Amino acid sequence: MLQKTNRLTLVEQVAMQMEALIESGQWAVGMRIPAEPELMDELCVSRNTLREAIRALIHAGLLKTRQGDGTYVCSSSVLGAALQRRISRTNVVQTLEVRHALEREAAYLAAQHRTDEDAAAMQACLQACELAAEDNDNQAYVAADIQLHQAIVAASHNDILIELYGHLIEAVQESVSAVHKPGNQAIYLLTHRQVIEAIIAREGEAAAASVHRYIEDSKQESAGGNGSSKEILL
Amino acid sequence: MLQKTNRLTLVEQVAMQMEALIESGQWAVGMRIPAEPELMDELCVSRNTLREAIRALIHAGLLKTRQGDGTYVCSSSVLGAALQRRISRTNVVQTLEVRHALEREAAYLAAQHRTDEDAAAMQACLQACELAAEDNDNQAYVAADIQLHQAIVAASHNDILIELYGHLIEAVQESVSAVHKPGNQAIYLLTHRQVIEAIIAREGEAAAASVHRYIEDSKQESAGGNGSSKEILL
Repeated sequence: MLQKTNRLTLVEQVAMQMEALIESGQWAVGMRIPAEPELMDELCVSRNTLREAIRALIHAGLLKTRQGDGTYVCSSSVLGAALQRRISRTNVVQTLEVRHALEREAAYLAAQHRTDEDAAAMQACLQACELAAEDNDNQAYVAADIQLHQAIVAASHNDILIELYGHLIEAVQESVSAVHKPGNQAIYLLTHRQVIEAIIAREGEAAAASVHRYIEDSKQESAGGNGSSKEILL
Repeated sequence: MLQKTNRLTLVEQVAMQMEALIESGQWAVGMRIPAEPELMDELCVSRNTLREAIRALIHAGLLKTRQGDGTYVCSSSVLGAALQRRISRTNVVQTLEVRHALEREAAYLAAQHRTDEDAAAMQACLQACELAAEDNDNQAYVAADIQLHQAIVAASHNDILIELYGHLIEAVQESVSAVHKPGNQAIYLLTHRQVIEAIIAREGEAAAASVHRYIEDSKQESAGGNGSSKEILL
């Protein structure tokens, strides 16, 4: 009985140590984790204990074994993996509605909590968007747009909101190919600029209202477009 | 090599079968799961495979072993358990901000998607709140208030929003003892009535604005109160 408990605790301890390495980013997503002998040495555990801990992390969605290759990190947190799995069973529109909920609140909170560094970061992201739009570089535009939204959310200084939003973005990107029709970028740039100006001016209600407006615009675009749920304007 | 893969798959299969029982509610939170021999029989697996699957679910936060007693269901979903763990490391105010984000969007969406049944459910919850307030029954009031909020979120008909909100409520209740000062119930009832009337009238913007108003009210109450972060008006 005692031995069983000890073994359980040891597996849990090893699993949690590896989880901490993953959540801290020392073991980054996409990385192959060290080979068994190395880990056994480092963690001072038997092969069986190590394997069971690894299997627990595979079940949690943090690790993935590739046949004959090794074990790779496939998600940066248990919460992220759980959300990803949950979202894969949901339709994209519902996921975007949750994302929008977080964006609106983030803009409101950012107006209260933003620092000067936050303001500079948001403006830099907006400039990157504008540059990409001028160059007609769609890929760069989408990337800059995502960074812009993340900069807004970061300025909320709400850790759990930031984390949830990051996981949602990741999950949505997995299932959606964001499409920005070149003709609409001017409108998006304008509404995004309004959000950022309101945040910098510390006008929370105005910032939240602007977010709400561009969300409604993008919903109408999606509905009025070719109807493919895979093509959604972010 | 082949055997190792098979065993991994079998453990995973068993873990996922048990996870499905938990997520469907057949194994409810608080329930003791059947004894090992029974499960081995039912699932046609060895003791080792079963134990490893159980340990994976313990690691995921779905099951908990009580020394010399048995194994109990302690969370209804992996996402819920992960959120709960994440929230336990966050301050209550940040968690409430996320909850408010979901509430505001839910009220907006409920105005678009609510059915007549949703409208009846929300009104019944509001009446329960009013009755509890009349009776000065604080415990009943808090319970009815939570049901009211869940009825609003349910009317959004967004599955992932409903699930996230449910987990957040659970996690917040674990760490906060909600306090309603009797003198404030009249104001809360009024603002909540406004939200529900706007939803029933299908006025999304007005519903979202009313949610935003009672959130701001409750924030000011909390800030102006005795300052304890454990006493928060919901």
